[in-house]
Amino acid sequence: MSCIFCKIAAGELGTKFIYESDDIVAFRDLNPQAPQHILIIPREHIEKVSDLQEKHLNIAGKLLLAAQKIAQKENLAEDGFRLVINNGKNAGQEVMHIHMHLLGGRKMNWPPG
Amino acid sequence: MSCIFCKIAAGELGTKFIYESDDIVAFRDLNPQAPQHILIIPREHIEKVSDLQEKHLNIAGKLLLAAQKIAQKENLAEDGFRLVINNGKNAGQEVMHIHMHLLGGRKMNWPPG
Repeated sequence: MSCIFCKIAAGELGTKFIYESDDIVAFRDLNPQAPQHILIIPREHIEKVSDLQEKHLNIAGKLLLAAQKIAQKENLAEDGFRLVINNGKNAGQEVMHIHMHLLGGRKMNWPPG
Repeated sequence: MSCIFCKIAAGELGTKFIYESDDIVAFRDLNPQAPQHILIIPREHIEKVSDLQEKHLNIAGKLLLAAQKIAQKENLAEDGFRLVINNGKNAGQEVMHIHMHLLGGRKMNWPPG
């Protein structure tokens, strides 16, 4: 298991989880781009959105439902937040394990990068 | 029905769909921020991610699976793309009907807005 996010999800790196369930874990980004910058990942190793298949319907849905729960817990639901998933090189995806960025605590600009 | 995205999903505005299924439609953003800028929405009127409930698990998953299908169809899977969902005022959400932006065809910057 060489994937850093698989190691994090397995608890091997002692990462503090903001949220965890049987399928999903969430933790703070090490290079935060907003006062709140959280990464939400499936425990299952899926490289990227463009690798998703029908069998991943549930886990994909759980990523978004986890975002709702985390936003609620972190008091971001009212003021708002942005969700971002980078897929591949044009988007700057750095870790090849699907991760959803949740950014909040400041006004976000447009375009989104 | 006063929601513009509900009207689009119902076909009332003659919008050309990039993708459509029983639950999801996708169409081009009128103010594109990248060579390819597509909006993916559920036909069901859900205001925002922070309103998602457990009953929305399937529709939430279908949003991400639709992104995979559209990226494939539009030849964005290999070079990459970014997915963005704005929730509420800090994120600049303009239409209160969940929509996922799919941006591709150029290198995206960081931070994402």
